[in-house]
Amino acid sequence: MVGPRVAFLGPEHSFTHLAALALFGGDAEYLAEASIAGVFAAVEGGRADYGVAPVENSIEGPVGETLDCLASSMLHVYAAAEARIILVLAGSGPRRVYGHPHALGEARGVLARLLPGAELAPAMSTGEAARLAAEQGGYCVCSRRAAEAHGLPVVAEGVERGENYTRFIAVSWRDQAEKGERTSILAAIPDRPGALYEWLGPFAERGVDLAMIYSRPIPSRPWHYVFYVDLAGGRLEEKVAGAIEEARARSLFLRVLGSYPVLRGLVF
Amino acid sequence: MVGPRVAFLGPEHSFTHLAALALFGGDAEYLAEASIAGVFAAVEGGRADYGVAPVENSIEGPVGETLDCLASSMLHVYAAAEARIILVLAGSGPRRVYGHPHALGEARGVLARLLPGAELAPAMSTGEAARLAAEQGGYCVCSRRAAEAHGLPVVAEGVERGENYTRFIAVSWRDQAEKGERTSILAAIPDRPGALYEWLGPFAERGVDLAMIYSRPIPSRPWHYVFYVDLAGGRLEEKVAGAIEEARARSLFLRVLGSYPVLRGLVF
Repeated sequence: MVGPRVAFLGPEHSFTHLAALALFGGDAEYLAEASIAGVFAAVEGGRADYGVAPVENSIEGPVGETLDCLASSMLHVYAAAEARIILVLAGSGPRRVYGHPHALGEARGVLARLLPGAELAPAMSTGEAARLAAEQGGYCVCSRRAAEAHGLPVVAEGVERGENYTRFIAVSWRDQAEKGERTSILAAIPDRPGALYEWLGPFAERGVDLAMIYSRPIPSRPWHYVFYVDLAGGRLEEKVAGAIEEARARSLFLRVLGSYPVLRGLVF
Repeated sequence: MVGPRVAFLGPEHSFTHLAALALFGGDAEYLAEASIAGVFAAVEGGRADYGVAPVENSIEGPVGETLDCLASSMLHVYAAAEARIILVLAGSGPRRVYGHPHALGEARGVLARLLPGAELAPAMSTGEAARLAAEQGGYCVCSRRAAEAHGLPVVAEGVERGENYTRFIAVSWRDQAEKGERTSILAAIPDRPGALYEWLGPFAERGVDLAMIYSRPIPSRPWHYVFYVDLAGGRLEEKVAGAIEEARARSLFLRVLGSYPVLRGLVF
């Protein structure tokens, strides 16, 4: 028996890699992709059965590229995983710190204490930052796992500001509506006063809880928006299904991105 | 007569610098700050009278750091400026392209045609990218103005995907409510089904148009949100004032960030 093929936002030892391992286990075959668009393309093109990408961070907010890929792809959300993210400062040698700009921002306080005046060297991801620190010398802000994989000594652990959680999603050609505890929808709402209010009515009247609502600009129509909404409950539940159908009638378009189970309690 | 002191998100020749010049003219004294938090701190600390930062892009969405600074500061939104952003590819020599990760993403299509296989070198801003290309050799994705300031030859103009607009805001200790054509508010809404729906009611009933609504995570409370809402109209208008007061009664808290004029039609 061969395990599933799982594409993830790389490089190896990225936080998304850890999320993919938590969702699909040790028997799967893992493919590191260089971009979120690449993860979606791998599944659409049949090179992978599932694709894993970050979708929301409790400090930074939504991951725009993932939301945009969901909008322009036909894939569904198959599963989600929520993890607490622990960042470490690792490395030695020159006073240079590699990191994704977000991670460097998170670690600002610790860096000012431990490596005052160090040069900040932006990298495309936390995994890439660890690779650069190992190759070029210096420090990086990354996961403990990435530091260990590259043989970098950990100088400080938990360098992020406050508790930092990220939700990852797995996308696939199908969802798991029968196990759905959360439902993601994408909708465009008419551009007139009161339209969003009227659109939310069907959910409010039935007591369907909105776990998340984000607006994203429509690139081809400046200052117009689509809404990404996560609902508590699965799309096979009567009150969820009824609210979605009524909201659909008030939308320019509405697409159910998927109903799926959520893996909780992870720490990376 | 001495002009106002205006802090902006630098470096010099950044798009934000151009927005600051459009809003405050040639007589002002300009201070480049290294971060959006630095722009706010300059005004709060009295080193500048106004601070200018990007707040929303029509492709990338909201600028999270600006929204977070608005939430944690006592400053008001004093004015806004909307500009179409034109990115150029400029430089010569080694096949290496400096750029802010967003700008490199925008230019992906053009880079694949003109500089296939070029090394992508992330920089903290478009202005910084131009400086690096001038110093280290190679190419960058930046504004025409930044390319010219650093003596870099422009290889291609308009390398962005589609029309790309950015809205910038100026912050200050006071707003311009008497000239207010747009009003920004920040609110936390109770976390229960229907709460957002009920909160929007006062605006829908009075026909107050929502120009923008973004949710941002509350860093100290994972998976809880505050809402940033821009309304058409000034806070001294009766229907806007009435809707805000009614919404305030349905909020955990609500703050008017400011009512202000909007400068439109700029091209950078």
